[in-house]
Amino acid sequence: MRGTVLYAARDVRVEDRPEPMIEKPTDAIIRLAATCVCGSDLWPYRGEDAVDEPRPMGHEYVGIVAEVGGDVRTIEPGQFVVGSFMASDNTCEICADGFQSRCVQGEYATPTGAQAQYARIPLADGTLVATPGMPDDALLPSLLAASDVLGTGWFAAVAADAGPGKTVAVVGDGAVGLLGVLAARQLGAERIVIFSRHEDRQKLALDFGATDIITERGDEGVAQLKELNKGIGAHSTIEAVGTQEAMMQAIRATRAGGHVGFVGVSHGVSIPGRELFGAQVHLLGGPAPVRRFLPELIELIGNGEIDPGKVFDLDLPLDEAAEGYRAMDERRAIKTLLRP
Amino acid sequence: MRGTVLYAARDVRVEDRPEPMIEKPTDAIIRLAATCVCGSDLWPYRGEDAVDEPRPMGHEYVGIVAEVGGDVRTIEPGQFVVGSFMASDNTCEICADGFQSRCVQGEYATPTGAQAQYARIPLADGTLVATPGMPDDALLPSLLAASDVLGTGWFAAVAADAGPGKTVAVVGDGAVGLLGVLAARQLGAERIVIFSRHEDRQKLALDFGATDIITERGDEGVAQLKELNKGIGAHSTIEAVGTQEAMMQAIRATRAGGHVGFVGVSHGVSIPGRELFGAQVHLLGGPAPVRRFLPELIELIGNGEIDPGKVFDLDLPLDEAAEGYRAMDERRAIKTLLRP
Repeated sequence: MRGTVLYAARDVRVEDRPEPMIEKPTDAIIRLAATCVCGSDLWPYRGEDAVDEPRPMGHEYVGIVAEVGGDVRTIEPGQFVVGSFMASDNTCEICADGFQSRCVQGEYATPTGAQAQYARIPLADGTLVATPGMPDDALLPSLLAASDVLGTGWFAAVAADAGPGKTVAVVGDGAVGLLGVLAARQLGAERIVIFSRHEDRQKLALDFGATDIITERGDEGVAQLKELNKGIGAHSTIEAVGTQEAMMQAIRATRAGGHVGFVGVSHGVSIPGRELFGAQVHLLGGPAPVRRFLPELIELIGNGEIDPGKVFDLDLPLDEAAEGYRAMDERRAIKTLLRP
Repeated sequence: MRGTVLYAARDVRVEDRPEPMIEKPTDAIIRLAATCVCGSDLWPYRGEDAVDEPRPMGHEYVGIVAEVGGDVRTIEPGQFVVGSFMASDNTCEICADGFQSRCVQGEYATPTGAQAQYARIPLADGTLVATPGMPDDALLPSLLAASDVLGTGWFAAVAADAGPGKTVAVVGDGAVGLLGVLAARQLGAERIVIFSRHEDRQKLALDFGATDIITERGDEGVAQLKELNKGIGAHSTIEAVGTQEAMMQAIRATRAGGHVGFVGVSHGVSIPGRELFGAQVHLLGGPAPVRRFLPELIELIGNGEIDPGKVFDLDLPLDEAAEGYRAMDERRAIKTLLRP
């Protein structure tokens, strides 16, 4: 099969790779209908995460089940499925609490890489969710978004306690931040302020439900946000970048008693305890337990209530994955969809 | 009047000081019935917080209202009152959300120091809560505890989401940690594990409702806690120390999806973003919004349902405050009550 491998910073290749096989009786093999490049893939692509050996890439996927292991009970060949980037049994105490991203049996859901024609998914019963029937092609981008960026933006909004009457601030205008806007809107937020300097992203943010845009960053951005909010900041802030600046901007943008949901993969972040003590904000983040939200998200997409697939502004054949990475790295694209 | 002043590390003196006067129409003057030494007073006492100029000490107080300013509406002379260490209007949006410790008008409640015969309390209406009638002398220690250590332990337990069916871990066996145990018990926690090496504190913890004691600290303590909890840690962890070791112990003791309530005043704490990202615990802390809990705590104390005053194991005349500090510093006392 064809599959994407990162050899070194900026060296992405699509090449012939062995087709994945069932390894454990709880595995499934899926034939991918669509996959994509994640903002977090750019960390190793840019050399900001070390690449010690060739790494099969991709962790976002939708597709048709090709084969299941002998212990798989609820997923069967021929079903169209959406899954999370973290495999989960969906039955342990941690999963039952809604934190499937930290399942006691958890592991990465795409050890063979999802930017490929086939992928092996561990713990298929607890990881994959089947759509009701075979979805229209037009829904593919949105269902694919559910697999990570929508699920992650949604978790961030839930972690930030977005809801009716709330002012929500969003730090980060990548796909996750933008879908955090969409999630906050769906959850009923009254005012949604995104920090963004890029016109195309601002436009999409407004389309997803943002009410205000602030182009300043850091403390200047925080000051502008507070001006909009009686001087006391947002109830709910989504952090979708992962840098020190973004995390501190999120904490400072949030009123005492408010909530910060942080989902940007932390790179060099260190939170000063005394400032957090003084800020008195609720903090919750980490890899999103996407599985928790998948049934609801699939339903909202199926009903046409949300169209998160709009974050894909570049659509390429899998073999052109390298260009997909380049376009995102150079900010020519928000997010690249790849068709195997 | 007599009042306590810290001149330099370990130099505490009780001396004649000017009696406080009404300065703003929202102030009240109270004649203290009892006050005490706080664990946080030990930071400057030990020289770990700088003492640049003589500092009137004390922020915990109960007493009788002597005088009120012209704008005070609900508090009147002759009432017995309990107040928080943070003054609050109790009407702003932040107060309405239960974060009176960060009131938009907030300031320290005891600018003149509470280890004294009289204290000026700003924002009296929003800061002080009157007891129903004049309490028995026997209730004084418990009512005084409500002013800070009980309110703080209670906030920590609430911030840690302690409740029925939960396993609660408590890092710190000072008065706040011990009253965190009491709060967790009142909130219905199933299992309450305290980390403690001191026999007198262990005894009090058991008395307040602890079910398990772990004498190890740090990662070894965490490992023992996890052994008690199916390998996945506590649902709810109270951090009541304020050091890096205690904060990391609290985060590591908590299961994914669990809650850490941290109330130890942060000293040199820095939380690594990547570890917090991976831990997926809810984090909330800071100076406790004691005012939120005072009506309930006063009622529980009045009904004899809780006896938090047991944390005072040394009872001295105000003039012997220096000995009260020494005894706590040397861990001969858990907490010192001072009688003006």
